[in-house]
Amino acid sequence: MAEPLVPPSLDPLFRPRSIAVIGASRTPGTIGNTVLWNLVSNGFSGAVYPVNPGAEVVHSIRCFKDVRAIPDPVDLAIVTVPARHVVSVVGSCIEKGVRGLCVISAGFREVGDEGLAREREVVALCRAHGIRMIGPNCMGLLNTDPTVKLNATFARTFPRPGGIAFLSQSGAMGVTILDHAEDLGLGIRMFASLGNKADVSGNDLLEYWEHDPETKVALMYLESFGNPRKFIPIARRFTRAKPIVCVKAGRTAEGGRAAASHTGALAGPDVAVDALLEQTGVLRVDSVAELFDVAQALMSQPLPAGRRVAVVTNAGGPAILATDFLVGKGLELATLTDETKAALRTILVPEASVANPVDMVAGAGAREYGAALPLVLGDPGVDIVLTIFVPPITLDPVGVARAIFEASRGTTKPVLGCFMARDEVLDAIKRLESAWFPLYDYPEDAVRAAWNLVRVRALRDDDLGEPVRVDADRATARRVLADAARAGGGWIPGADAFRVLSAYGIRCAPVEAAEGVEAAVAAAARVGGGRPVALKLDGPAFLHKSDLGGVALRLEDPAAVRAAAERLQAIAQRASPDRPWRFLVQRMAEPGTELVMGVRSDPVFGPMLVVGLGGIHVEVLRDVRFGLVPLTPVTARRLVTRLRAFPILAGTRGQRAADLDAVEQTLLRLSALAEEHPEVVDVEMNPVFARADGVEAVDVRLRVAPM
Amino acid sequence: MAEPLVPPSLDPLFRPRSIAVIGASRTPGTIGNTVLWNLVSNGFSGAVYPVNPGAEVVHSIRCFKDVRAIPDPVDLAIVTVPARHVVSVVGSCIEKGVRGLCVISAGFREVGDEGLAREREVVALCRAHGIRMIGPNCMGLLNTDPTVKLNATFARTFPRPGGIAFLSQSGAMGVTILDHAEDLGLGIRMFASLGNKADVSGNDLLEYWEHDPETKVALMYLESFGNPRKFIPIARRFTRAKPIVCVKAGRTAEGGRAAASHTGALAGPDVAVDALLEQTGVLRVDSVAELFDVAQALMSQPLPAGRRVAVVTNAGGPAILATDFLVGKGLELATLTDETKAALRTILVPEASVANPVDMVAGAGAREYGAALPLVLGDPGVDIVLTIFVPPITLDPVGVARAIFEASRGTTKPVLGCFMARDEVLDAIKRLESAWFPLYDYPEDAVRAAWNLVRVRALRDDDLGEPVRVDADRATARRVLADAARAGGGWIPGADAFRVLSAYGIRCAPVEAAEGVEAAVAAAARVGGGRPVALKLDGPAFLHKSDLGGVALRLEDPAAVRAAAERLQAIAQRASPDRPWRFLVQRMAEPGTELVMGVRSDPVFGPMLVVGLGGIHVEVLRDVRFGLVPLTPVTARRLVTRLRAFPILAGTRGQRAADLDAVEQTLLRLSALAEEHPEVVDVEMNPVFARADGVEAVDVRLRVAPM
Repeated sequence: MAEPLVPPSLDPLFRPRSIAVIGASRTPGTIGNTVLWNLVSNGFSGAVYPVNPGAEVVHSIRCFKDVRAIPDPVDLAIVTVPARHVVSVVGSCIEKGVRGLCVISAGFREVGDEGLAREREVVALCRAHGIRMIGPNCMGLLNTDPTVKLNATFARTFPRPGGIAFLSQSGAMGVTILDHAEDLGLGIRMFASLGNKADVSGNDLLEYWEHDPETKVALMYLESFGNPRKFIPIARRFTRAKPIVCVKAGRTAEGGRAAASHTGALAGPDVAVDALLEQTGVLRVDSVAELFDVAQALMSQPLPAGRRVAVVTNAGGPAILATDFLVGKGLELATLTDETKAALRTILVPEASVANPVDMVAGAGAREYGAALPLVLGDPGVDIVLTIFVPPITLDPVGVARAIFEASRGTTKPVLGCFMARDEVLDAIKRLESAWFPLYDYPEDAVRAAWNLVRVRALRDDDLGEPVRVDADRATARRVLADAARAGGGWIPGADAFRVLSAYGIRCAPVEAAEGVEAAVAAAARVGGGRPVALKLDGPAFLHKSDLGGVALRLEDPAAVRAAAERLQAIAQRASPDRPWRFLVQRMAEPGTELVMGVRSDPVFGPMLVVGLGGIHVEVLRDVRFGLVPLTPVTARRLVTRLRAFPILAGTRGQRAADLDAVEQTLLRLSALAEEHPEVVDVEMNPVFARADGVEAVDVRLRVAPM
Repeated sequence: MAEPLVPPSLDPLFRPRSIAVIGASRTPGTIGNTVLWNLVSNGFSGAVYPVNPGAEVVHSIRCFKDVRAIPDPVDLAIVTVPARHVVSVVGSCIEKGVRGLCVISAGFREVGDEGLAREREVVALCRAHGIRMIGPNCMGLLNTDPTVKLNATFARTFPRPGGIAFLSQSGAMGVTILDHAEDLGLGIRMFASLGNKADVSGNDLLEYWEHDPETKVALMYLESFGNPRKFIPIARRFTRAKPIVCVKAGRTAEGGRAAASHTGALAGPDVAVDALLEQTGVLRVDSVAELFDVAQALMSQPLPAGRRVAVVTNAGGPAILATDFLVGKGLELATLTDETKAALRTILVPEASVANPVDMVAGAGAREYGAALPLVLGDPGVDIVLTIFVPPITLDPVGVARAIFEASRGTTKPVLGCFMARDEVLDAIKRLESAWFPLYDYPEDAVRAAWNLVRVRALRDDDLGEPVRVDADRATARRVLADAARAGGGWIPGADAFRVLSAYGIRCAPVEAAEGVEAAVAAAARVGGGRPVALKLDGPAFLHKSDLGGVALRLEDPAAVRAAAERLQAIAQRASPDRPWRFLVQRMAEPGTELVMGVRSDPVFGPMLVVGLGGIHVEVLRDVRFGLVPLTPVTARRLVTRLRAFPILAGTRGQRAADLDAVEQTLLRLSALAEEHPEVVDVEMNPVFARADGVEAVDVRLRVAPM
């Protein structure tokens, strides 16, 4: 079933004028009872119609036996009936002209084949009639817009209005998030629990929220990506204007398996998730706590211009911890100007320390914070201010919070706070006036929020550029690959792999295939060009040819080539009596820094580039980087510069730097090959020598999917 | 001033029978007013005497003009008068026969030379009269023992009694910690804020708490170590019986500087802190939040036998996050037996997942948790159980918490909880019955606590062994080093460095010093033993001899030696016209894996061993490990096996393993050298070749402190 080209708006879901609750129940504590009550008690602006064949009235509202019996139009139906009734309910909704569905009922894809069939039937009905559906197996949606006041969830909490749009793949996380948001005083604009994402996806919600001016930030809790390719342009456009912060569960293999058993969704490798999110400017955080911490900061503070943090405190200990954390996160302790320090000196007690951290000592209260903050905020060397306050007995924390808020009003630099006080004190500040400034319990939380503000800014401003079209002999590559796919795919002959890569402009050590010893000797004379040659066995039995002794290196003259060819021929005849094999004769490359480059394909994320330094760096130290295809010049360069061992390539200990442009070019050409030939599912180039005069692939393998 | 051999007990501080508050004040909000009120209002079991020459009565208690005027004996004096009066107050206390002092007043070492002099005077008075003093510049101490009820602090909170002894170097952190402990329902046994640690140190407190049967766990917030050498045996003995958990601020260089400016204490390198704490079995945590999280777990749960975690949940999302976190921390997701899974199947709904994570789905409540937990706890493959609960509308979280508590009562496996609920719900559970089981807001917090329980167990059971005495030609080493120290210290001649290391049994490539070309040729014949030799310039101008071209390698015959010696001589005469130099003639060593080994001395922590693989591993990848002297065979081996590049040494990619015993032996011998010769402040052995037949040092440098 193809998706419609322009999906119908999500307005029937988020801005309905009337709602039917199909499965409304008189039994307290049931979902059908609670959803109806949440709609009514939170003041939904339109009419709500309970539907239940067995009830006359629910929550004092006249109940209908069937959605079709409702005399007025119905925009949105909330479905809580058992799964086996959902298909027929959807049929009734279509007859009634309902335009949006939210199927809370469970019992679909997540319970196996029967459920999956049921889910597909429901989706087909919706698609055929232009209905958008959230769920099934979800916990509903809400919209706090005062003109709508939609609470179609069974959560305990209807949040205060605010600028956060939130989507959760998990219902439980949705409940948690609404609860915690309220505890933190965070305002929510819209929320949806997507459940099985059978119709409405995260991509749909982002497109919808992009055009909602009251949505300032989008938060996501995800366990899988449905359509990463579609996500890229949508999320990239969104994050240019407003931040997206994402928790993606399943970072580890074990977590990925747990996620798969939870939703039946394939998680895909985490390196691909990282690449996808960075590429789209989405801030990935590790935990729900961190999601809240950064949301608090984003909702009340400007983004910082840089990473230099000033700490203003009345206690040394927490400031030291904050300093440890911020340096550990890659932020910098700002250096205050002499003018700032002199000015601080005039307003603070002599025991105060006016270097950063500015320690105003225990007696400092509202007056000192109010006087010091403008000075520190005005220092050109400061991008972010972290205020720490440990309330001594004599001082009112709320007064200090107010002073910090007043002093930071109108500044273009973010001000964060860490008040190490009793919960009741913090709650008083947070709940009464949440818009003051973001307040954290511990220095590490405040520092992590500051770090995330820096990352959001960097992601927003990050220009990854566009993929470039590389010049290539595409006809040759297409022909070789098509032949291989027609022949059933698999690892293609080495000479063909070299031909494809060379066709894409990747420099390989000159090579020729040869059948038999004499042909090998003749080929050596041609490819050698006065330099020694290598002889390698090539064929399906020799994927790991080195292990079989199928390689002879540094052959200086025809006699050496002949002797080696005879030796290798004997090995080949023994190891591969039934399958074809040939010699590859290759000019010995000048050595350089060994690189490994390749392409691996993932069923969810498609092809990924892999690069690392060869030998121990990949095998022992696991120092490799992955990038989603297509790479751009910026993302290609970044893969290389982020290797831990990058300084080796860049030239260290008196060695010459490798030609980094050539390394980048090679990655871009590999990316183009993978992008233009989805049938190429595996490429391994190992080693590639990177030298000052360019790069040269010495050994390559390429696998093609069958046609 | 020498410390008395057996320090007087801290009983006068923590179990006084009577207290004078010197500086008691009638002004609300002052420290002198608050401390007195805290003592009185929290029901101190003995008599409290306000002392203030300007007041008749404070807090309805008759006030004395001078401590000497109090008619009854006084055990403890709390001093809050301005610093300039403290010396005379201490004199009065001595006359009065006071046995313990707690000097809250600031204005000592932390404000500069004048304050330091004052502090020294106070300490001298105390030591001369057998008085123990806490502070100065601290926030007091407390003891919740019902027979004492001592609250000699100016904190807002007097904690409930419990098993935690807490020491804080920072007063502000102390206040914070008391506040948060109460919020979490954690009971405190004793607390002391140590301030400048002029007399009573953390070591003293640990020794005192070791013998207090009601103290179950010690928590420490430190910014510096006063006497690491003394700490080792005290902490090691303590942690065999009860855990110590420590936050040591100043992990980064910037944080260390902030700490130094805060307390005037030298932080020492963080690698040394790590080594010290591991060696003593102390659990180091990164933040105050983590300190609380682990304390909660330690106070109510047994230590786990292993690292296999089972997750029991009613919600998939948080369980996936928990799985990610626990795998990320190096814990394992337990594999449940088929019996456990079958039994779970009989009690849970069909949609439940009975593999770990055990997802009982949203409807699971007290009954399901109560039934599933004993099954999971009884599984032999499970060491720790993490329960997660996201309260749906219909279920009472407190009931679920009670069910978990009942089901886990009496188990020998720790049970942790993560309830993702509104603060008010959590507070209800935590505050009402804190002894139930440790409850965390987020999966990552619960996982971190589980991980820390595993670490505490491992630290308790860790047997690092004892340093071994190595056989050595100590007389030779002593003589060479004494001569060098007498000659003013500094980098000693290369031949001497080789002699010292060889005397300690460290195998070095055979080497001889030679003056002049002919001597070099003759020496080559002796040391070469049929193998090529290397020639190196040796002298104060040639510490970086390679950079100056002062090294010639692989000299095969006397002619080559002579030619090289003439060339090097010319270089030496140009580069070092005024200072002495010689040739070092050395047999070329068989190459192996390059190691770097050495000793560096730190003013606080003393000598530290350093080891890493040579070349890029140290210079680019910063893959080095540090260990405190003296090493034991276990700690020596651990330094090597924890190198990221250890697989290279252990043999990888078909290469032979290096002789790891020889590597360990060499480290132990270096350690013995450093231990027995504190004047050796720097040793660099770079490279040392590690081969299958042992290790061999090729180039060495050694620096001696002047006598």
